Amino acid sequence: MDDDTLARRCADAMWARDRASQALGIRISDVAPGRATASFTITEVMVNGHAIAHGGYVFTLADTAFAFACNTYGVVTVAFGADVVFVAPARLGAQLVARAEERARYGRNGVYDVTVRTADGELVAEFRGRSRATSAPLLSEG
Amino acid sequence: MDDDTLARRCADAMWARDRASQALGIRISDVAPGRATASFTITEVMVNGHAIAHGGYVFTLADTAFAFACNTYGVVTVAFGADVVFVAPARLGAQLVARAEERARYGRNGVYDVTVRTADGELVAEFRGRSRATSAPLLSEG
Amino acid sequence: MDDDTLARRCADAMWARDRASQALGIRISDVAPGRATASFTITEVMVNGHAIAHGGYVFTLADTAFAFACNTYGVVTVAFGADVVFVAPARLGAQLVARAEERARYGRNGVYDVTVRTADGELVAEFRGRSRATSAPLLSEG
Amino acid sequence: MDDDTLARRCADAMWARDRASQALGIRISDVAPGRATASFTITEVMVNGHAIAHGGYVFTLADTAFAFACNTYGVVTVAFGADVVFVAPARLGAQLVARAEERARYGRNGVYDVTVRTADGELVAEFRGRSRATSAPLLSEG
Repeated sequence: MDDDTLARRCADAMWARDRASQALGIRISDVAPGRATASFTITEVMVNGHAIAHGGYVFTLADTAFAFACNTYGVVTVAFGADVVFVAPARLGAQLVARAEERARYGRNGVYDVTVRTADGELVAEFRGRSRATSAPLLSEG
Repeated sequence: MDDDTLARRCADAMWARDRASQALGIRISDVAPGRATASFTITEVMVNGHAIAHGGYVFTLADTAFAFACNTYGVVTVAFGADVVFVAPARLGAQLVARAEERARYGRNGVYDVTVRTADGELVAEFRGRSRATSAPLLSEG
Repeated sequence: MDDDTLARRCADAMWARDRASQALGIRISDVAPGRATASFTITEVMVNGHAIAHGGYVFTLADTAFAFACNTYGVVTVAFGADVVFVAPARLGAQLVARAEERARYGRNGVYDVTVRTADGELVAEFRGRSRATSAPLLSEG
Repeated sequence: MDDDTLARRCADAMWARDRASQALGIRISDVAPGRATASFTITEVMVNGHAIAHGGYVFTLADTAFAFACNTYGVVTVAFGADVVFVAPARLGAQLVARAEERARYGRNGVYDVTVRTADGELVAEFRGRSRATSAPLLSEG
């Protein structure tokens, strides 16, 4: 299995068990080794009385892209921590796109940058995730 | 109005407009100047196929406690950014309690530490939020 | 050997090899399990043309307190990363005191909060360090 | 004055007053709007007894690159905070190169990524700085 195929099969396995991301209407795309994109639309349950998204949902989208990006190598990899900078509010009905890209991998550790933008390209948040690989295989043996 | 009364009235005003936190079943308690506690129970929509909460929901609870704590001084204060360390997974049905405490306030800026634990006291996450006050009053006049 | 004695012996062993901290005139005090204080005075080589310390030296003091605090358990423990918030400038001649306190320890990982103040108690910076223990003993046998 | 010229004149003005960076033997290069590179060589005073650099000096180099990169627009801009991930130790005699690149600028705020490598290209640290512009001009008139 080549690296791209492994990455996509990992994403499929992640997705099958990630009911939380499914329930939020998140879509995963552009999966490759160390990369993934997650997107969703801000709905009524995610906003406050001024129609602005709770920052937790912006983080959740970025965290999902991060999780899919760092789990592309065939071993279960967990989120160790993350830093987020909130740049601009996200509004009800907006489609948000979070692109995760690997910045560094060393030993079992990884650093991933995730940029969250609206579909129009407006910057919403910058996220940096810290991952750690376990020794558990992500894909069950055929 | 004394400081504690102001803090509680701010929390009431925040709560009235925070539909997202209401929808998650979050409860706010122990509000005082620079402090607040948020708690909720991990439900089916928050977990993956192994009954472990998506990290985004743990962050969201901490972020909510942070938002209520930094909005206790009568002016609208926004989350500028945050760092989170995920310590242990949170499981389906667990009640999580996030206690936010002010660490520093300088100029319009603030630093708030939030510890997330299970109701049994097991540590789940450590969060540090960075806030910035606007010049908008949080409470409407008269 | 009790925990406090172990902590102090670890600090002595750390200090003996930490030429960089010695060269900066750092003093270590108040060492106990998960705790340490580092202090120094801002000198000419640490400041810019306006007599304000380079942020790197404020970080270095906090990082030193963190290193001594997380190395109090008898195993070599490394700094994995850190976040710092710069609150106020530190001036030439000021004495800075960095107090490190353990916030969490789980598996081989730790989270330590360090507050940097002037000797007058003015807040200069808030630092949060992330540590990871190795399996190497810190104290040589016999 | 075009943007590149402004950026370089800002760097010259920064350098003239930055005695701390001069004292560390730091060299600044590749200055452009939102970008700068800082480099130095790890010397005896920066290392511990095992000839490994104190993390504070690695941070300091990254922080310097960050400061020069965010001060390329003609207004005095301060470091608000930063996160650093230490990837590998830096050894006595190694030349380190820190490249700072702007990731986002919004209102008076900025986010800058700095990667620190050895001259051989080995990754040493990943740093993310948060800046805030003041209203003071960086270049004196006439």
